[in-house]
Amino acid sequence: MKLPTLSLHHHHHLTTPFLHNAATVSLSRSTRVSNGSPFAVRMSLKEDGPSVAIVGVTGAVGQEFLSVLSDRDFPYRSLKLLASKRSAGKKVNYENRDYTVEELTESSFDDVDIALFSAGGSISKKFGPIAVDKGTIVVDNSSAFRMDDGIPLVIPEVNPEAMEGIKLKSGKGALIANPNCSTIICLMAATPLHRRAKVSRMVVSTYQAASGAGAAAMEELELQTREYAFNLFSHNAPVLSNGYNEEEMKLNNKSVKVTATCIRVPVMRAHAESVNLQFETPLDEDTAREILRNAPGVVVIDDRAANHFPTPLEVSNKDDVAVGRIRQDVSQDGNYGLDIFVCGDQIRKGAALNAVQIAELLL
Amino acid sequence: MKLPTLSLHHHHHLTTPFLHNAATVSLSRSTRVSNGSPFAVRMSLKEDGPSVAIVGVTGAVGQEFLSVLSDRDFPYRSLKLLASKRSAGKKVNYENRDYTVEELTESSFDDVDIALFSAGGSISKKFGPIAVDKGTIVVDNSSAFRMDDGIPLVIPEVNPEAMEGIKLKSGKGALIANPNCSTIICLMAATPLHRRAKVSRMVVSTYQAASGAGAAAMEELELQTREYAFNLFSHNAPVLSNGYNEEEMKLNNKSVKVTATCIRVPVMRAHAESVNLQFETPLDEDTAREILRNAPGVVVIDDRAANHFPTPLEVSNKDDVAVGRIRQDVSQDGNYGLDIFVCGDQIRKGAALNAVQIAELLL
Repeated sequence: MKLPTLSLHHHHHLTTPFLHNAATVSLSRSTRVSNGSPFAVRMSLKEDGPSVAIVGVTGAVGQEFLSVLSDRDFPYRSLKLLASKRSAGKKVNYENRDYTVEELTESSFDDVDIALFSAGGSISKKFGPIAVDKGTIVVDNSSAFRMDDGIPLVIPEVNPEAMEGIKLKSGKGALIANPNCSTIICLMAATPLHRRAKVSRMVVSTYQAASGAGAAAMEELELQTREYAFNLFSHNAPVLSNGYNEEEMKLNNKSVKVTATCIRVPVMRAHAESVNLQFETPLDEDTAREILRNAPGVVVIDDRAANHFPTPLEVSNKDDVAVGRIRQDVSQDGNYGLDIFVCGDQIRKGAALNAVQIAELLL
Repeated sequence: MKLPTLSLHHHHHLTTPFLHNAATVSLSRSTRVSNGSPFAVRMSLKEDGPSVAIVGVTGAVGQEFLSVLSDRDFPYRSLKLLASKRSAGKKVNYENRDYTVEELTESSFDDVDIALFSAGGSISKKFGPIAVDKGTIVVDNSSAFRMDDGIPLVIPEVNPEAMEGIKLKSGKGALIANPNCSTIICLMAATPLHRRAKVSRMVVSTYQAASGAGAAAMEELELQTREYAFNLFSHNAPVLSNGYNEEEMKLNNKSVKVTATCIRVPVMRAHAESVNLQFETPLDEDTAREILRNAPGVVVIDDRAANHFPTPLEVSNKDDVAVGRIRQDVSQDGNYGLDIFVCGDQIRKGAALNAVQIAELLL
């Protein structure tokens, strides 16, 4: 059962201004739960499921791991909730059972089949390899291992094949990296188009939510302090010698040329991205729209007459990435360019949901 | 004298988050006033100045016209404040004199040399030609005449030559159009680079303030209603058959290929724009930075170590357009591309200041 006390967030279903005729678009909260009620009783505790640990359970993404596991009826035979010493001892009621948060130590991973990490890069770097040595398969939400050769960086809808060879019950541990949130949200829309017409270059400008800067930034925005509200600023990641910040370089890709500008905006938990695409072969906008309508995990919101397009509020707490403003780029001749606008929940598909989907591929 | 009661806005000088080491950058509030105090006594009433009318004086831009005229000591021998019947009779104290707002009628322009219009497109379409017939030179802030052949569309730093032949005291009236706010802010930075290396294509993504949607939108944002705060949305301008909205098409240009995505963000009065530039001849980032440092009306804020770049708050109520994040585009080979991030006050350089600068060219 999804308990409200464990869920940081509630549903927003407000329309945006100027959208008086906005059609209702259904975005899936969970793709696997047939009963739509958020209070449906689900029991994922199953004798033959893997043993699961959550590292960083008290954080925003850690809490979302619990929500997503429950929403998707992810089977587990046992659940271990791990956090720093400061949080150890906290009681959590989850799916009708009481748990006590335990301190993360080197012995935390005995008999853990799958560990979902979201406790920052330094915790991942220290405890990830320890878990792997114990035979645990680690799905890591930090940037610690994203650039490492031999560690798959996986979006299940994009490159599930990268996980080949990683199996539960093989006795062998492994690391799998969860990509950066902006990258996941962008590639959910760009990849289906890339498969058809090969993207040669992308120009991305992001509108990133406060949630990516942590719970403190969200609280600051909620309190409407002038430093965060009514303003926006270049992403707070360190700037490299080439002038790009680390967040922007994360959008880079070996096979596609990408330039990105990453900006934080006073929005709570969903990212938006303006993406300009150049293709090697022509792709018209109607075909692109049809491809995106059929893409898994993607919903098209593209009602020009009603000026109804994706917004961060509309995708907040939702699984799907929403795509709209699909149009032929007037600055490129002959159907070789498209502009699109993408929104996705940074904590959900950008973090916890993607990690749990990776774990599902192991089942 | 700039009277606080006539000024809608006050200075914000807060730093943005994560900018703890932010160097102070001086942005000019006014380029012609030597005394920096906002309460400096200025008297622009001069026997040999033109007679000036402001159409739409009670609106946000109308009020800013008064502030800018005073800040810049714009000379006038008389001042007529015009608005709709609803506002007629209101008293205004301006530069130590009392004025009464008059209703705009067909006879309002007798003996008016220069009229600054900001009362919406339909008022401009009706009363602009009437004023011209009376021999008035109209600087129009609406979109009514922007696309008309023979009506110059002017940014004084960019194309003052377009006003050639329009003279005060010639007895001949004329229309001059003030460009769209996003266009002005973008071109203030892009034009100096274009002069050096010829821009062949631009990809622009905007982060537009509530002020552009009018005073009601600003109030809604100030009240933090959920419809406007914590969210962003595709610009509210009508969407055309090619999928671009009217705001995006305004960024188009005959000599440069432009694709734009215009988004409204919960920011009060300054716009931001992420601009990707492609050049015909190579231009390295150091040269670009130097060109921009020397460009009139532009200030460079580009401190990578301190993560200090332009923000909407920092340019609010300022004259200059701020440019930063100047960097070689990694997706283009051989110095043929640059990414920049531009912020400018939508009501000031995006509207009232630019119109007054046009009027100054007539003096």
